[in-house]
Amino acid sequence: MSASPDASASHTTPQDAAPATSVGLDTVDAWWRAANYLTVGQIYLLDNPLLARPLAADQIKPRLLGHWGTSPALSLIYAHLNKVIVERGTPTLYVCGPGHGGPAMVANTWLEGTYSELFPDITRDGAGMQRLFRQFSFPGGIPSHAAPETPGSINEGGELGYSLMHAFGAAFDNPHLVVACVIGDGEAETGPLAASWRGHAFLDPATDGAVLPILNLNGYKIAGPTLLARIPEEELVQFFRGQGYEPLLVTGGFDGEDPMRVHERMAAAVGEAYDRIAEIQRAARASDLPTDAAAPQTPDVTAGGAGSDPSADADPTWPLIVLRTPKGWTGPRFVDGVPVEGTFRAHQVPLAEVRDNPEHLALLDTWLRSYHAEELFDDEGRPVESLAALQPPARTRMSASTHANDGVRSALVLPPIEDQAVDVPDSRWVEGESTRVFGRWLRDVMIANPDDFRLFGPDEVASNRLDAVFEVTPRVWAESLVDGDVHLGRNGRVVEALSEHLMQGMLEGYLLTGRHGLITSYEAFVHIVDSMFNQFAKWIESASHVPWRGPISSLTYLLSSHVWRQDHNGFSHQDPGFLNIVVNKKAAVVRVYLPPDANTLLVTMEHCFQTVDHVNVVVAGKQPQPQWLSIEEARRHGEAGLGIWEWAGSEDDPGLDPDVVIAAAGDVPTLEAMAAAQLLRERIPGLRIRFVNVVDLMRLQDAKEHPHGLTSDAFDAVFTTDRPVVFAFHGYPALIHQLTYRRTNHGNIHVRGFKEMGTTTTPFDMVHLNDLDRYRLALDVLHRVPGLASAEGMPELAEEWRRAREDAREHAYRYGEDPDWITDWEFHG
Amino acid sequence: MSASPDASASHTTPQDAAPATSVGLDTVDAWWRAANYLTVGQIYLLDNPLLARPLAADQIKPRLLGHWGTSPALSLIYAHLNKVIVERGTPTLYVCGPGHGGPAMVANTWLEGTYSELFPDITRDGAGMQRLFRQFSFPGGIPSHAAPETPGSINEGGELGYSLMHAFGAAFDNPHLVVACVIGDGEAETGPLAASWRGHAFLDPATDGAVLPILNLNGYKIAGPTLLARIPEEELVQFFRGQGYEPLLVTGGFDGEDPMRVHERMAAAVGEAYDRIAEIQRAARASDLPTDAAAPQTPDVTAGGAGSDPSADADPTWPLIVLRTPKGWTGPRFVDGVPVEGTFRAHQVPLAEVRDNPEHLALLDTWLRSYHAEELFDDEGRPVESLAALQPPARTRMSASTHANDGVRSALVLPPIEDQAVDVPDSRWVEGESTRVFGRWLRDVMIANPDDFRLFGPDEVASNRLDAVFEVTPRVWAESLVDGDVHLGRNGRVVEALSEHLMQGMLEGYLLTGRHGLITSYEAFVHIVDSMFNQFAKWIESASHVPWRGPISSLTYLLSSHVWRQDHNGFSHQDPGFLNIVVNKKAAVVRVYLPPDANTLLVTMEHCFQTVDHVNVVVAGKQPQPQWLSIEEARRHGEAGLGIWEWAGSEDDPGLDPDVVIAAAGDVPTLEAMAAAQLLRERIPGLRIRFVNVVDLMRLQDAKEHPHGLTSDAFDAVFTTDRPVVFAFHGYPALIHQLTYRRTNHGNIHVRGFKEMGTTTTPFDMVHLNDLDRYRLALDVLHRVPGLASAEGMPELAEEWRRAREDAREHAYRYGEDPDWITDWEFHG
Repeated sequence: MSASPDASASHTTPQDAAPATSVGLDTVDAWWRAANYLTVGQIYLLDNPLLARPLAADQIKPRLLGHWGTSPALSLIYAHLNKVIVERGTPTLYVCGPGHGGPAMVANTWLEGTYSELFPDITRDGAGMQRLFRQFSFPGGIPSHAAPETPGSINEGGELGYSLMHAFGAAFDNPHLVVACVIGDGEAETGPLAASWRGHAFLDPATDGAVLPILNLNGYKIAGPTLLARIPEEELVQFFRGQGYEPLLVTGGFDGEDPMRVHERMAAAVGEAYDRIAEIQRAARASDLPTDAAAPQTPDVTAGGAGSDPSADADPTWPLIVLRTPKGWTGPRFVDGVPVEGTFRAHQVPLAEVRDNPEHLALLDTWLRSYHAEELFDDEGRPVESLAALQPPARTRMSASTHANDGVRSALVLPPIEDQAVDVPDSRWVEGESTRVFGRWLRDVMIANPDDFRLFGPDEVASNRLDAVFEVTPRVWAESLVDGDVHLGRNGRVVEALSEHLMQGMLEGYLLTGRHGLITSYEAFVHIVDSMFNQFAKWIESASHVPWRGPISSLTYLLSSHVWRQDHNGFSHQDPGFLNIVVNKKAAVVRVYLPPDANTLLVTMEHCFQTVDHVNVVVAGKQPQPQWLSIEEARRHGEAGLGIWEWAGSEDDPGLDPDVVIAAAGDVPTLEAMAAAQLLRERIPGLRIRFVNVVDLMRLQDAKEHPHGLTSDAFDAVFTTDRPVVFAFHGYPALIHQLTYRRTNHGNIHVRGFKEMGTTTTPFDMVHLNDLDRYRLALDVLHRVPGLASAEGMPELAEEWRRAREDAREHAYRYGEDPDWITDWEFHG
Repeated sequence: MSASPDASASHTTPQDAAPATSVGLDTVDAWWRAANYLTVGQIYLLDNPLLARPLAADQIKPRLLGHWGTSPALSLIYAHLNKVIVERGTPTLYVCGPGHGGPAMVANTWLEGTYSELFPDITRDGAGMQRLFRQFSFPGGIPSHAAPETPGSINEGGELGYSLMHAFGAAFDNPHLVVACVIGDGEAETGPLAASWRGHAFLDPATDGAVLPILNLNGYKIAGPTLLARIPEEELVQFFRGQGYEPLLVTGGFDGEDPMRVHERMAAAVGEAYDRIAEIQRAARASDLPTDAAAPQTPDVTAGGAGSDPSADADPTWPLIVLRTPKGWTGPRFVDGVPVEGTFRAHQVPLAEVRDNPEHLALLDTWLRSYHAEELFDDEGRPVESLAALQPPARTRMSASTHANDGVRSALVLPPIEDQAVDVPDSRWVEGESTRVFGRWLRDVMIANPDDFRLFGPDEVASNRLDAVFEVTPRVWAESLVDGDVHLGRNGRVVEALSEHLMQGMLEGYLLTGRHGLITSYEAFVHIVDSMFNQFAKWIESASHVPWRGPISSLTYLLSSHVWRQDHNGFSHQDPGFLNIVVNKKAAVVRVYLPPDANTLLVTMEHCFQTVDHVNVVVAGKQPQPQWLSIEEARRHGEAGLGIWEWAGSEDDPGLDPDVVIAAAGDVPTLEAMAAAQLLRERIPGLRIRFVNVVDLMRLQDAKEHPHGLTSDAFDAVFTTDRPVVFAFHGYPALIHQLTYRRTNHGNIHVRGFKEMGTTTTPFDMVHLNDLDRYRLALDVLHRVPGLASAEGMPELAEEWRRAREDAREHAYRYGEDPDWITDWEFHG
């Protein structure tokens, strides 16, 4: 593949150049007909791809799959974008939003030649065309969406709603790129898409590329009309003006209108849109040379703060195209006496049962021949010479875009974590806020990577105590500024809107185009993007089997404000279930980390930022809490993923046979488990306790099931084969059972975790309510070590501990706080 | 509580009546000040509620929690709505969208008297006021949101974004109700809210109530500005016009503006909004007497179909209020030299560390006294007489609304399922489509319940084969109609938009106000609403502890187009993980059903529609498949929840000791397990097979953990204590292990299910890829019954089966179809 055209580009925009060449609309129409022919062929034909012979039933696929309805408009847009690319040389990315648009996208990329370059078996001739047709929606073939297998794609049309956020993510920090984003009118009804229109509020025309939304109003979803197609045109225009766009309306193809008229209007609209984009960028770049976002800025909380510039131009009015064309345009107008073209009946396969219905077979024959393939392909099935005029050079070909395909990614520059590490004394008793410590290193990462790293968060970056980043970059904000604004500016590298969807989608688009980032969220509310996570994990998994796709930086979540420290916000804010969603996905993709303190968080993040093609989920609290490990220890612990903390158990000799294993995963569980171990050590001196901390959750799974999994022997060496294990876990207990199900000692693993007991209360009462508190854990040990519970003095001790936890609860309900003897607890090493 | 005011109302709207009384703005202002005082008191005060003594540090709460920023505007709106209610008598529901608006809502409901009626301990006097203050955000007290504990609330302000969809759901079929929905400008950035604005496209002004959105632009989220507050006002107005509203703008309170001026403008806007609503309803109800939606209509697919009336008026332009006021209005303007009122710093607690900072304590004193509590409460702490003028009678009091609190629910009328049951012959070999059969009964349910049952789906009702409902009611559609439209009309009872969020939220609002419904979705895409499910399950759980809340009908999901039959749509459409999300929630709330055939689906749905306060998740396929049970058998099986199918195993005597248990949950797993059992019965005649089918998944859990759980003995009687169990499961295998973890025979349960192997292929290849196919299951039995695998003839048989499954795969990849010997498989009873 070619190198990035942007790599050596200066700050003049390619759009400045006068059109070097001009492509006639006849060629555009020929391209469009060829793409439509190839689309219908993919849906229907097993054989006879060029219709050299009469069409016969046995040439038709046995199962008719695929979606015709959206395809003609996708190809029309493709052809017109190629025209502008050929004429102006503007690097453009095509984001295909409509579901099941796969056959059209594949058709265009085959016409361009890219498909055959990337899949040499699918040659650009009749034989290749037959294989192209056969593989579509066929076992062992390709999906019906624009998928990872589709050249030039960064957006799957499977689950709808994410195209425009992907487009904005792709445009960030790509000042010379136009991201043309086709949005289906069905997709436009989804919440995530509805929240995306104003994504340009986070786009700096000086340093970012442009997004050109193209809404295709074909009027129908699967079975009914779409909202945006049925509102008065006046309202539609106002809607987009209200979203900060000046819409360009192109309507045509209805009632048999000659497509050439539509080409004229579409060419004018696309040209005008590119002109306006060039103008906006020229204005922004002339007046406003990009600021170095890494330059430290001193925030001033009493006046316009970092990056704030009240005199800056307001957010420009961006162009947007509304293309209103019939659904399934150029397909059969009537089938069995019922209208099809321009109705919801054109959504999928307009002609069913073609093998068995001679009338339908004849209609298909007429339909296919209406494109005049003989004018479009030579005798060998190669696209005719004249189509080459619409084929951009590889450098600017959308299907060959290095932004989408093989990556422009370079590794992050990572400053030493040691610079920000917490100094943990031998006594291991020092308080720290894990995310605040990490925030300082994150600031250093942003300094070291000024143009390809961004932080995304739903208005929670400061709340999650990562605000050190604001020392070096503001929140990006292209809307108006007012006196008193702090940490806001057009050139910011922190992206915040109160939409988890938008944040996740923009980060996905940013990563998929070769850059780096992090998303932070309250733990409970990350469930809002469960489905986006699912789809992204599937994308990564599928993309890993596509040989020409380059690696992308992993998507890393930092979940803070987690279940155990949402005592003040209550039940609606308490939910650790995202981990359950994550571990269902392919082991090759997912990683889960629960660093117990700040230094381990630093080590974990340093690792995550170096990985590719993973989803990393890191859960870490923001509240002050004890720090356990020096940075050297944290590094060893992080690399091991889990380990015995000899200093926390009662073993002087690591080889000693323990009576019980106390294990913990998560910062609050570690604190409670440490306190439990201390209670036991102090009150039952003879008890041999092994303390295990788990930071890499997937270590618990078998090595055969997860690449991070421990072998059976390694697991047994830590958790024993027959001793009771009391496991304090951050999330739902069943997850630990799920991961350790095949382990020798599984029957002895007793897990405490969140059992959906939540309310507005104190931190200790939260662990108490869920039986994860230190006394409950100590009692669990008492009851599980054979013979201990009934030993001398033990019933009394059990009673004392039971009373202590009840007392703490009563104290909370009386004074609204945890008692001092909990908040002032100290570790005695 | 009072009976519903709507019950006996005629079709004249209450708004028609001339104002019976008029409330002065002085009273409105006094009410507002009282509410603000009570809000600040809740956030700060433990004692001295009436400030009878000098304010002292020990009267301040030790932990300052709660959110001031949004509260003054919430109370301002409350007071003005009360004014219009008192004056016009219009029944109104207040949906509070902004997060953490709890203290304001509680303050107003206490002022109205409802709070003390519902919580007798919180009396409407000084002693009650003190308890009111203390309980807020206090252990054992109430949350900081408008929560189930808040009188009159149907929307929790915890996770943001759902208020407007809840409001539309509440307005459906409540023709005399105005649902005033306050939306925060932070909330307005979320995807779900962004998709809700045009909810009026599904609202029939003739037969539904009205929704009055009130957007409060206070300018800030937690830490940054909001988008809608910063775009030019011209764009804001266009945005709302583009959404089909005529916005009424009220701006005030900035730079110390006298609140009385704002009251004047707000009173005018609210009055005008109610006038316009009345006018829209009058016009619609005069010209368009509500059609009986249950009257059968013959769809005509070639022309305007059921309910279509091209001459009907277009969707009216509804009023909407934009209230722009300072965040934390009337709070401290500066703290420590930094501006607070009107900035993000007013979001939560404007004055921190009040106990330790005498300056802050003095500021709090000044702030509290600025409301002049002495004018608002008498010496006993009771609201003064003059405030009573703004206190609506219980009949129309928002906090006492029977729509929200104690329910207007009546049981559904359920027609006999027998009328639609599939006739299953003794041979048990008949093909049927489960959801299509259910769809016919659903049609009958809609006939029998013409005004309090609705079906919601993201454009998938027909795709999921429930289209029989369109015989009796169209899709609701208040936008324009065109020639050729089918199944569309303003009076439809099927709600479809391509947004799972909107569908779920509208159904929630409909259920929470006492009605019934069903949501259907593709299985994979229901993950889009994972978080909404979580929050709703939490709401139900919390509401069940609030004594004055009535039961609501259960929220029932029908998940079709499931993982095993998305072979054509590919990997992005294949995900059974919603069940994992569901079982994490409280056992009292969640139910999961996997009916294996059409009759069991009928029985399951009949049950689900009778339950209250649950979330029911039903997974059932839409594709043709074998039908196993007669309706009588299905009824017994459904009631048992799981059971031995003697006729499918090799046991003549149910008491026979089996060699192996083959279990299945889900329709496709049941088919494969049945085929496996048949293979084994035919080829290994001596093998004693027990066949178990599970329809109620929670039966697998222990009776101590779930109300549907089997006792240990009952479970062992079915699954044995020591025989191998080969379990074919619809979802991820770990879920079965999670549920059966405590069972005696757990170690012998071997589960096959979805292991994230997905692609575009054939149905059989899907089960093959995931090792859930009949041959793999038969091989599992062969390998798990001691000694069998090595018995005479068995290695050859194993080889034969291995070859058969590979052959099927090759056939699929060659011909694109499953081989005849799979698709034509027949059960031999």
